[in-house]
Amino acid sequence: MKRRDFTRTLAAAALATVPGARLGAASTGGAPVARVPRINGERLNGWLTAISEFGRNPAGGVTRLAYGEADLAARAFVTQRMLEAKLTVVVDAAGNIYGKRAGADASAAPIIFGSHVDSVPEGGNFDGNVGTLAAIEVARTFAEQGVTTRHPLWVVCWQNEEGGTWGSHLVTADVAGTELSTVARSGKSIGDGIRYLGGDPTKLAAARLRKGDVHGYLELHIEQGGLLDRQKLDIGVVEGIVGLREWDVTIDGFANHAGTTPMNERRDAMLAAARFTEMVNRIVTAESGRQVGTVGRIQAFPGAPNVVPGKVTCTLELRDLDDRKIQTLYEAIVAESQKIGARNGTTFSYHEFVTHESARCDAGVRTIIGAAAATRGFATMSLPSGAGHDAQNLARVCPMGMIFIPSVDGISHSPREFSRPRDITNGADVLLGAVLAMDEATFR
Amino acid sequence: MKRRDFTRTLAAAALATVPGARLGAASTGGAPVARVPRINGERLNGWLTAISEFGRNPAGGVTRLAYGEADLAARAFVTQRMLEAKLTVVVDAAGNIYGKRAGADASAAPIIFGSHVDSVPEGGNFDGNVGTLAAIEVARTFAEQGVTTRHPLWVVCWQNEEGGTWGSHLVTADVAGTELSTVARSGKSIGDGIRYLGGDPTKLAAARLRKGDVHGYLELHIEQGGLLDRQKLDIGVVEGIVGLREWDVTIDGFANHAGTTPMNERRDAMLAAARFTEMVNRIVTAESGRQVGTVGRIQAFPGAPNVVPGKVTCTLELRDLDDRKIQTLYEAIVAESQKIGARNGTTFSYHEFVTHESARCDAGVRTIIGAAAATRGFATMSLPSGAGHDAQNLARVCPMGMIFIPSVDGISHSPREFSRPRDITNGADVLLGAVLAMDEATFR
Repeated sequence: MKRRDFTRTLAAAALATVPGARLGAASTGGAPVARVPRINGERLNGWLTAISEFGRNPAGGVTRLAYGEADLAARAFVTQRMLEAKLTVVVDAAGNIYGKRAGADASAAPIIFGSHVDSVPEGGNFDGNVGTLAAIEVARTFAEQGVTTRHPLWVVCWQNEEGGTWGSHLVTADVAGTELSTVARSGKSIGDGIRYLGGDPTKLAAARLRKGDVHGYLELHIEQGGLLDRQKLDIGVVEGIVGLREWDVTIDGFANHAGTTPMNERRDAMLAAARFTEMVNRIVTAESGRQVGTVGRIQAFPGAPNVVPGKVTCTLELRDLDDRKIQTLYEAIVAESQKIGARNGTTFSYHEFVTHESARCDAGVRTIIGAAAATRGFATMSLPSGAGHDAQNLARVCPMGMIFIPSVDGISHSPREFSRPRDITNGADVLLGAVLAMDEATFR
Repeated sequence: MKRRDFTRTLAAAALATVPGARLGAASTGGAPVARVPRINGERLNGWLTAISEFGRNPAGGVTRLAYGEADLAARAFVTQRMLEAKLTVVVDAAGNIYGKRAGADASAAPIIFGSHVDSVPEGGNFDGNVGTLAAIEVARTFAEQGVTTRHPLWVVCWQNEEGGTWGSHLVTADVAGTELSTVARSGKSIGDGIRYLGGDPTKLAAARLRKGDVHGYLELHIEQGGLLDRQKLDIGVVEGIVGLREWDVTIDGFANHAGTTPMNERRDAMLAAARFTEMVNRIVTAESGRQVGTVGRIQAFPGAPNVVPGKVTCTLELRDLDDRKIQTLYEAIVAESQKIGARNGTTFSYHEFVTHESARCDAGVRTIIGAAAATRGFATMSLPSGAGHDAQNLARVCPMGMIFIPSVDGISHSPREFSRPRDITNGADVLLGAVLAMDEATFR
């Protein structure tokens, strides 16, 4: 098998430091680094340009909401590229597209790698598309170079990532029927959306992945932050996907005439909200670490220039790789807000409406990715993913890792989102190396 | 003339300390305080209960928008009470109702006193009604007791006070035709509203009052703040009506992903808005005085829990009796906001959309009011009016003064607005005394 000609170096480099990973039984000696295969960067970047036509906005970027026409068109494009890569294409019951490639060992669990092609409203051309098309390019390179892995390879295009990682959620969790009634941004329910994409929401059990069903999961993605770009690094080895919690915060004071109510008699909910927002910033930045806290939405009632606001509603969002740190920050914020309320006769109440636990990337997979990048001479750093990804759902059922490439100026979810073609090529090459190393690895 | 029997004491008490006022030529000796006439408080408070039926809300209070049916009905009630008080009723070209009573000197300029009967949406029963009906009660008392003043007396019910003191504005300023196109809360334009009330917007010149046309103006009103109530005082002698300026404040930062943008890389417009709101409070309260500053409305863009706001718009309102102090506060706020912006890469811009200059009450009229209250044994304080009133427009053409009575808990523009019957009676008695003293006074 040709794979033995070049994968040995990678696997050895990776496995030397992979906790819980060991060399596959069939592994033997290595080959020079120069013989490491490369994906076709020109082809991959050409596909990225081509897919950007589906849902293109007049001002640039794309609006390709899940379950819309542009989503369907982009998925047809993905299917066509999968077929060209000699992959066997199936749409599962949840509406995800798999491009499958057989491995040498028919009994081995598949390696899944890919991303998504749906977008936020007025999003960019790179979020999701890079990882999906790079995965196909890796498979196509294997086909062209006659590489066979031991594990089957499943290139995946998850459905409706931007609406809440639905495609990966539906195959990694026991889904309540009521969830399918959730209405997506397109206006279709999740259930109707699944049907629209060719899935069957009544047969989700058939698509379900459980522990042991998957050897490992890899996802290449743009960073969406500015750490790699600012530090001029090539590749980010993701430590994990941060936990995220969101609260509606209601501040009750007393509305009164802004002309006749002296300053010291006011129970001004807006002033309390201001002190709250500043306090959230202070508490979140008080200690080192990459935790973030955001007040993103606010409304004052009655909301007139000449009335002291009697009520303000706003949101609080906290994210960190450590769920306990989120809880600690939250408790500190609640305690401080009570002091703020006591100061001017206002009260704070919290209603949590979004909770996502953090998902750690597997230590062995991180080592594999770091080694695959190092072997190719790329400068790397470890970093958390502040954004959510399908990978966090896959972490429930298998070892998971993510590869980040730089986002210029850290801009994402915007027509100004941009990643350089060279970085995209580099990322796909690292993905290829990591797939091969994962194929050799055994995880605890 | 019977008036000489009892007004002498009042006039002397008032004029002893009135700068620029002197005794009328006809004045002679006085009478004991016990003979000071009293209005009929039971009748006045009965009228207040009766008028509260027009536009009554299910939850209490009234919605009596200018130019609506309830406004018309309340004005008919006012007209009827004026006729019962032997007043000659006329609706001027601007739609204001005057109830006129002849004076002994046909060439003397009239004393105007009254208020309004329109309300804000979901307003109370006392704002405006107290002053209008008390003025009629004063005239009725004069009629019943055979009192004749030297100056003609014009009891007034101004139209559309709550929409921006329109009735008094239209008779004290040179009105641009375009102003009449302004659409009021009722949905009618000011021009159509004038016609609806029986006026004629093409003949406003006939209704115009100029300097010299009016001897003086008096208005009794509920305080709308809580100073008198908290200090258990009977009567407020208004120093003036505060100036008011309102700005739309726009804070520009940069919208970014709340998960992937580190805290120290954010140009968070919401954080800047919070610092701004807190700073406005700090600057306004830093020095003694009754100045007030309010941030009453706010919106963040894009306004999602998971996006760092790139833009926030909010309002700033400043009020004080001294227009120069407002300007000084504004300049300090602008300077501080530039520092706030520099701190996190945001910029502040200001657009002023409301400007009302302050209006001082005439010093002589204030002394007259204070003396009228003291003569009756009432505890008084001097205070500014934080709210706007028709009196501020009358200040352009004649000496003006206002009498405040307590608002329980300082609540106004609310169904919970309440003033005690005894306080209303007291206020009307002070109004009566002040009218008589003003009749005797000469102003510089």
